[in-house]
Amino acid sequence: MEKPQDKNWRSKLHEIIYEADTPAGKMFDVVLLIVILASIVLVMLESIKSFDEKYHNILNISEWIITIMFSIEYIARIVTVKKPFKYIFSFYGIIDFLSTIPKYISLIVGGVHALAALRALRLLRMFRILKLARYLGASNNLVNALKASKAKISVFLFAVLIVAIILGTIMYLVEGEENGFTNIPKSVYWCIVTLTTVGFGDIAPQTPLGQFIASLVMVLGYGIIAVPTGIVSAEYTNQNKKDKKEGETIKPSVHLNTQVCVNCSTEKHRDDADFCYHCGHKLNNE
Amino acid sequence: MEKPQDKNWRSKLHEIIYEADTPAGKMFDVVLLIVILASIVLVMLESIKSFDEKYHNILNISEWIITIMFSIEYIARIVTVKKPFKYIFSFYGIIDFLSTIPKYISLIVGGVHALAALRALRLLRMFRILKLARYLGASNNLVNALKASKAKISVFLFAVLIVAIILGTIMYLVEGEENGFTNIPKSVYWCIVTLTTVGFGDIAPQTPLGQFIASLVMVLGYGIIAVPTGIVSAEYTNQNKKDKKEGETIKPSVHLNTQVCVNCSTEKHRDDADFCYHCGHKLNNE
Amino acid sequence: MEKPQDKNWRSKLHEIIYEADTPAGKMFDVVLLIVILASIVLVMLESIKSFDEKYHNILNISEWIITIMFSIEYIARIVTVKKPFKYIFSFYGIIDFLSTIPKYISLIVGGVHALAALRALRLLRMFRILKLARYLGASNNLVNALKASKAKISVFLFAVLIVAIILGTIMYLVEGEENGFTNIPKSVYWCIVTLTTVGFGDIAPQTPLGQFIASLVMVLGYGIIAVPTGIVSAEYTNQNKKDKKEGETIKPSVHLNTQVCVNCSTEKHRDDADFCYHCGHKLNNE
Amino acid sequence: MEKPQDKNWRSKLHEIIYEADTPAGKMFDVVLLIVILASIVLVMLESIKSFDEKYHNILNISEWIITIMFSIEYIARIVTVKKPFKYIFSFYGIIDFLSTIPKYISLIVGGVHALAALRALRLLRMFRILKLARYLGASNNLVNALKASKAKISVFLFAVLIVAIILGTIMYLVEGEENGFTNIPKSVYWCIVTLTTVGFGDIAPQTPLGQFIASLVMVLGYGIIAVPTGIVSAEYTNQNKKDKKEGETIKPSVHLNTQVCVNCSTEKHRDDADFCYHCGHKLNNE
Repeated sequence: MEKPQDKNWRSKLHEIIYEADTPAGKMFDVVLLIVILASIVLVMLESIKSFDEKYHNILNISEWIITIMFSIEYIARIVTVKKPFKYIFSFYGIIDFLSTIPKYISLIVGGVHALAALRALRLLRMFRILKLARYLGASNNLVNALKASKAKISVFLFAVLIVAIILGTIMYLVEGEENGFTNIPKSVYWCIVTLTTVGFGDIAPQTPLGQFIASLVMVLGYGIIAVPTGIVSAEYTNQNKKDKKEGETIKPSVHLNTQVCVNCSTEKHRDDADFCYHCGHKLNNE
Repeated sequence: MEKPQDKNWRSKLHEIIYEADTPAGKMFDVVLLIVILASIVLVMLESIKSFDEKYHNILNISEWIITIMFSIEYIARIVTVKKPFKYIFSFYGIIDFLSTIPKYISLIVGGVHALAALRALRLLRMFRILKLARYLGASNNLVNALKASKAKISVFLFAVLIVAIILGTIMYLVEGEENGFTNIPKSVYWCIVTLTTVGFGDIAPQTPLGQFIASLVMVLGYGIIAVPTGIVSAEYTNQNKKDKKEGETIKPSVHLNTQVCVNCSTEKHRDDADFCYHCGHKLNNE
Repeated sequence: MEKPQDKNWRSKLHEIIYEADTPAGKMFDVVLLIVILASIVLVMLESIKSFDEKYHNILNISEWIITIMFSIEYIARIVTVKKPFKYIFSFYGIIDFLSTIPKYISLIVGGVHALAALRALRLLRMFRILKLARYLGASNNLVNALKASKAKISVFLFAVLIVAIILGTIMYLVEGEENGFTNIPKSVYWCIVTLTTVGFGDIAPQTPLGQFIASLVMVLGYGIIAVPTGIVSAEYTNQNKKDKKEGETIKPSVHLNTQVCVNCSTEKHRDDADFCYHCGHKLNNE
Repeated sequence: MEKPQDKNWRSKLHEIIYEADTPAGKMFDVVLLIVILASIVLVMLESIKSFDEKYHNILNISEWIITIMFSIEYIARIVTVKKPFKYIFSFYGIIDFLSTIPKYISLIVGGVHALAALRALRLLRMFRILKLARYLGASNNLVNALKASKAKISVFLFAVLIVAIILGTIMYLVEGEENGFTNIPKSVYWCIVTLTTVGFGDIAPQTPLGQFIASLVMVLGYGIIAVPTGIVSAEYTNQNKKDKKEGETIKPSVHLNTQVCVNCSTEKHRDDADFCYHCGHKLNNE
């Protein structure tokens, strides 16, 4: 049933870059992971003044090396896909682009500070590499549970915000400017700090009445932390039950791998699949 | 079966103000939401000294515009309901009144500080607008779970309070005034700050014995946070199960909309309802 | 079947003091609750220096009044029970005694500071009054869940302690005395403060390595908070299930009241009980 | 069926040291527990400067006594096992060795500071003593639940780390060096402090925008604490269910004791076992 395959360099490169089933593909993923981590460490080290002054040249050169590596990878990704625009405007396509350009921009504009944030986006790339079935399976249930409880958590967060604004306004009136509650936004900020049980202590109530209200806020915050936990917990148990039922009938018979269709970039094909289940294109099976 | 309808301006206005099923009704809700949010932002900006000094006139005029809009809305609500007193003394009626008057009072009394809190109440109005069936459905279960665990949570909070008072008194004796534990109420306040894991750090034990007791308080607080979470989690799972059972028999066949009876202000009628299920008054169906 | 009853003043007083089924019994409980709360407020006010200086006499007199009221109550309780020693050495008997004596001791020894803690014990008395069936029913499940998870929580707390000691020692070595980690016990204290997510901030790591380890401690603490919550949550769900099963067969047919046997002080007899289920003594039914 | 037994001193000593079923074995465990606790207290006291100066000699002598006791125990353990290398390179073998040597090293190198951490490892020894079936049974389920949720918790922690790095970078750009966010690693540290709701307050945002972002971080941290709790809670309930099913069929008929095979150090044999279930060696039954 095997048709003669067009095994040119493009489809081979596609297999290496987008999949993790072959030794070369795994190697590529590991190298990419290391480069991404190195680039994040570089951004961090650069921000430490004393370090940057000493090793400025080394940091600069390393950053250029990494930028060039990312550029090559980005171009390779575009070249090997059949529908490059689909990749360019996909989530990872944009992330890849944004994490490559900062150094080029700095050439034109000079060392702009704000580019550091852009470079931090590189971390998001790592999620692509961790596309191992086991981890995805693990987080899928979690993602489903979070999706199912989205509406409830929104209502909850909205209620928390209203409580914070009302109590913040009251604290502003009770404590006043002399105790650090300079204005209502700052009071609301303090209220969120307290409700979430973070408690920085840079602003703290000084009057007895203020401390009494603060106690109420804290106990309230301590109590309502139970609400999102209860929601997620219940939904997650639900998802697990569903999963179990489905698992009994369907799951045992299928195994999905990390192959990606050259044509439409769909992932997770069956091990015995010859054609993409989404667009019908021939898959790279040897 | 359709009786001739009294479709005068009052019933039309009622439909716009109280319901969200027609385009005009939705528009009204969105505009109201924006005005409420704007009024909250205004109160906040006014409390920032430097901002208030610069733009005092603009803030004052904006506040008057919003107050007048709220006044018109309040009067419109009274006029369009058949039983105005029922609305006036309802929860939202009082909220609407209290969030409208502060500016009028400031005319007589002068810029009283405490009115800011009153204006913060405007946020509560937003809940009326978010009366979408989906959100209500989502939070209903939560509200039921919280109601069912009310007695248990009361016992729990009471126990926490007693622990806080006893441990607070002990800390007052151990640490004494020289380390910030000036009196028992302040010690109890510190104890609540610690039990709830907020930990401002404005007061912190300095003696070894005090730090040892503080460690016990923290571990205790860390442990008992499990109690309300466990309660809410269990009750919420219960509510979901009940919901599922009921859902299987009743829910699928009914769909409730946001219509409100002109006569008795009852909400959530069935889509195919012609008369109010509560008072039997004709509903505004076209 | 009714035998002639010995309805003298002692059994009548017993009914008032120990039970909450008659109007007089309820009145007594409410008055006692108020006196206890007042006595706690007094202890607190006394600890506030500025307040004590102004109103020393009033506080002193009020404290004497409350002490005398507690003394009368204590004697009445002893007199009306048939087995006074059983009451005296019961949990509440000791609490009642300890919360009555501090003022008498202060006559002999002078205003000793440490008596304040003794007086704070008075709050424990309130639990007796809240012996309403509803609350007991509510907290019983909770108490059972906590009992069932006692062994697990002990292991958990022991593990937390070991982690705190090891990480505390490491932090002492990394940060050293110059950054506030003066000795190992203080480091362990800091570690508990951080693990429980309290975070006072009176001691905080200053070196990069210390901050890195601190991050690990925090994430660890953030993660392990899930453990006791999960335990209590699961046990509580278990208890509820058991309760439901038992409830279906036994509960609906019995109603327990707050009556207390004059002879053996056993509580919670059935509404239709004529004799104590524990010692067989005649109950005070009219 | 009883074969003549080689009941020499070695096998007797083995029973005392490794098992807790005989009175002598229990005694040994209790003494060891006390010595370990004493050694930990010693390390702590030594680190308190003022205490060490006063009682240096006493501390030094006590430390030597404990070290010698540990040495004897370590040698006895090696001598009584048939395969000493298996013990030496086992988890507890290494712990025993590391917790014995620090004092000997200090003889050669002088009072090196870092040895304190090594001595803190002694606490890990205690776990061996607490090998009572009840506790192991209790924590086994917990350990299983944690194992089952390992992959999910890894994904969760990884996501938290990425969020911390990205938000930390943003905070570094927003707040800058003048407000304590000196470099990105420090900002990330602050972000972890805030996300985990610890909130030391040594670094706190000062600009309105920074406080706004901080509020988002806190609410996020407050929300995501629900995730690990939900996971552990659900898995733990699962483990309990499994346990119940197994318990119904297998458990009631078996009782495991703390006996340890002299040959292969396997633990938890059945009460009626005559031979090791792992290597078939004769067990020490009298």
